Amino acid sequence: MAKIKVTIWNEFYHEKVNDRVKSIYPEGMHACLKEGLACDDFEIRLADLDMPEHGLTEEVLNDTDVLLWWGHCRHDAVSDEVANRVVAHVRNGMGFIPLHSAHYSKPFTRLMGSTCSLYWREVNEHARVWCVNPAHPIAQGLPQQFVIDHEECYGEPFGIPQPDDIVFITWFAGGDVFRGGCTFTRDRGKIFYFHPGHETFPNYKNEYVLKVISNAIRWAAPAPAMPDRGNDYRNPLEPVND
Amino acid sequence: MAKIKVTIWNEFYHEKVNDRVKSIYPEGMHACLKEGLACDDFEIRLADLDMPEHGLTEEVLNDTDVLLWWGHCRHDAVSDEVANRVVAHVRNGMGFIPLHSAHYSKPFTRLMGSTCSLYWREVNEHARVWCVNPAHPIAQGLPQQFVIDHEECYGEPFGIPQPDDIVFITWFAGGDVFRGGCTFTRDRGKIFYFHPGHETFPNYKNEYVLKVISNAIRWAAPAPAMPDRGNDYRNPLEPVND
Amino acid sequence: MAKIKVTIWNEFYHEKVNDRVKSIYPEGMHACLKEGLACDDFEIRLADLDMPEHGLTEEVLNDTDVLLWWGHCRHDAVSDEVANRVVAHVRNGMGFIPLHSAHYSKPFTRLMGSTCSLYWREVNEHARVWCVNPAHPIAQGLPQQFVIDHEECYGEPFGIPQPDDIVFITWFAGGDVFRGGCTFTRDRGKIFYFHPGHETFPNYKNEYVLKVISNAIRWAAPAPAMPDRGNDYRNPLEPVND
Amino acid sequence: MAKIKVTIWNEFYHEKVNDRVKSIYPEGMHACLKEGLACDDFEIRLADLDMPEHGLTEEVLNDTDVLLWWGHCRHDAVSDEVANRVVAHVRNGMGFIPLHSAHYSKPFTRLMGSTCSLYWREVNEHARVWCVNPAHPIAQGLPQQFVIDHEECYGEPFGIPQPDDIVFITWFAGGDVFRGGCTFTRDRGKIFYFHPGHETFPNYKNEYVLKVISNAIRWAAPAPAMPDRGNDYRNPLEPVND
Repeated sequence: MAKIKVTIWNEFYHEKVNDRVKSIYPEGMHACLKEGLACDDFEIRLADLDMPEHGLTEEVLNDTDVLLWWGHCRHDAVSDEVANRVVAHVRNGMGFIPLHSAHYSKPFTRLMGSTCSLYWREVNEHARVWCVNPAHPIAQGLPQQFVIDHEECYGEPFGIPQPDDIVFITWFAGGDVFRGGCTFTRDRGKIFYFHPGHETFPNYKNEYVLKVISNAIRWAAPAPAMPDRGNDYRNPLEPVND
Repeated sequence: MAKIKVTIWNEFYHEKVNDRVKSIYPEGMHACLKEGLACDDFEIRLADLDMPEHGLTEEVLNDTDVLLWWGHCRHDAVSDEVANRVVAHVRNGMGFIPLHSAHYSKPFTRLMGSTCSLYWREVNEHARVWCVNPAHPIAQGLPQQFVIDHEECYGEPFGIPQPDDIVFITWFAGGDVFRGGCTFTRDRGKIFYFHPGHETFPNYKNEYVLKVISNAIRWAAPAPAMPDRGNDYRNPLEPVND
Repeated sequence: MAKIKVTIWNEFYHEKVNDRVKSIYPEGMHACLKEGLACDDFEIRLADLDMPEHGLTEEVLNDTDVLLWWGHCRHDAVSDEVANRVVAHVRNGMGFIPLHSAHYSKPFTRLMGSTCSLYWREVNEHARVWCVNPAHPIAQGLPQQFVIDHEECYGEPFGIPQPDDIVFITWFAGGDVFRGGCTFTRDRGKIFYFHPGHETFPNYKNEYVLKVISNAIRWAAPAPAMPDRGNDYRNPLEPVND
Repeated sequence: MAKIKVTIWNEFYHEKVNDRVKSIYPEGMHACLKEGLACDDFEIRLADLDMPEHGLTEEVLNDTDVLLWWGHCRHDAVSDEVANRVVAHVRNGMGFIPLHSAHYSKPFTRLMGSTCSLYWREVNEHARVWCVNPAHPIAQGLPQQFVIDHEECYGEPFGIPQPDDIVFITWFAGGDVFRGGCTFTRDRGKIFYFHPGHETFPNYKNEYVLKVISNAIRWAAPAPAMPDRGNDYRNPLEPVND
């Protein structure tokens, strides 16, 4: 069976300039995710902001089935050209999994068309991720709820279009709820937004978080494209006697 | 302008047999709701389980634009005939607003087609009702969140079909979230399920709860029926040369 | 890999009493479907109305991953007990694929909660099945549209709840459109309604119709159930200091 | 009662350079729509591409409840600044009704996030617009289907995100179907895309088309904004003892 080709993109900034983050993710969050997601059916590569073309050349994206994206304080440093390239690949079938503060990334906001705004606070509170859609492929093998020991709180209203499916809703100790695990489709591309992953907590080592992301990768992997009608589309299929 | 004709149905049992409930709702929850919802554009009548045909004759339902329903421990005492009559009227355009434990009522479960099961506990915890759809008519005039001082906890997974819109998600102090304010359409009938209203708390005197229900009544009120094609439907609209 | 256990249920009436139908489906539509769907990963059994318990005992349903259902003029002959048994199994995860006039079958209408009514005519017209959701698993390997040479026309408005996904919309020569390929979820059960299959046309020998149904079977096959919280659900997960 | 302030925007190009279009819409399609939509509760103004800032200054948009948009061959001539201004106003609650070839306009594609691509042909065929959602406010007062004598064919797959509601699906004589009347929400803004209106046919004089657009204007008109939490959002609502 062909492996699913996964590219994990990270702006890879906090890990270099913040000692606490560096101690948690010495090689970067993307490297930690690569290790945690490793399995027989994934072939994982890494890319980051500082690479030429942010590591997301046409060649890399043509060879990517599912792209994970982590960005936070350097969204604006992503070039419009690369952001639009990612958007085009998603519409053409590439799976896309924006994580945590990637809700404000250029590719995600351009794919959503809405503000993607939310409320937030950093008080080290714990969170409970509840499954509200047990039949969904992304929920397979998960419990009805799991705990994240510390996470940045994200709160409603979350400025997203109505999701295709809400798979998880998160409870925060400080009093908020958040539609933190949602799917969307844009043309042939499947998208899953998932909120955990603040840089100051080791949540990409949480087994449940990793399980959700693994499931999402398999769910978002593209099927072959449907054949196009080609140049015939301007001819009616039926006699038009008008 | 024609008034919206509202019928509030209550199984009206706890208020008669439980002193605590009686002290909160001496005339019944339906009477309390009638008082709290009173306004110029509503014409409200009451009905309960012990009335002939549970107070829901064809005549009453023909004269009802929107039906509110509160039931808990006597769902089975509702006759199948009346339950199916309610279902038929909803499909024919009557608005329907099942409240609290009416998630397990005969009309609601028959309209949903799913188990409508949920998790629950009674520990007198407080709840926060969050709006996740500020553009929805049922959210108009409400704040981003409001508090219910004490409520029975309802928890996920909630066995409902995917709602047309989720308007509110509730946070419970004890650690649960709940899609507690959801809309559905069944044929021409609009349905809004709303979770607050455990019989041992005075939550039908909460101004926000009343505001939500008032909005829902206006949203669910039926428009005139679309004319049917009548007996012509068996004739093709176009020449069929097959 | 474990095979998907498929049960094809047919009321199996027209094939016995109508010569034209008998000539097309001498062994019944279910037998024709079994032959057309045969492949390495399906294990297919047949059941029909006249078998004891309509062939759908608890034992059979416990051993069924996905149930196909064809019924037309004998919906009422299906016992409530068996219909409710099917409904319960669907809610518990069994996939369900009602075909053609099964829109009015007891299991489908009880799972939908709406009238499931539609307009129809029999004038032997041809139909074009258009894919409106190329990213959906049920659309994989299909062209953008395919022709059905002759089919009973089903028309809108179709009295179904809003589907989770509309995969196919059908064009009829006589001037109608129909949301003829739609998915729904009820608790853990996945449902796909598909309209082709009038008994007087050999449409269950159409390669595209068979491809759609094959895809739907794989899509609807259940995943393992999520573990329940058991008896602990009445205890709050968090301290409640109310 | 306050009137709904409607701005009808038109690229207003074909009407100036094409004699056939000029003969149908001598003052422009926007002027024809203004006349056809005129009623007591609408206050309508016109704007076009050639006006300063395309007639869509902050002042105009601040004074607009619902914006209609017709564009076709000059999408690129709309400045990014004005397109983004429209997008921002929609997200902030302004209703938006893109018509016909505005599926490819800058504001619509930026609000959708998908390609918005479709198939098309111009062979003067007739179309039938079917209502598939009789309960929807935009369908009120319409018949189950109505005819458009000649229209450009738009066909599936249509590259839109899953709509909130599909209200109309159109049948084309030449063999296509099209989800031609769909709603979307982006933050607080309601959007209704409607396909009729090719410049060479007088379809903005069709009473049913005008009725649909009138309904959509009333449906899309914004309600007052929900109050924001202000600067308090960084403080937890509950004690966090982590």
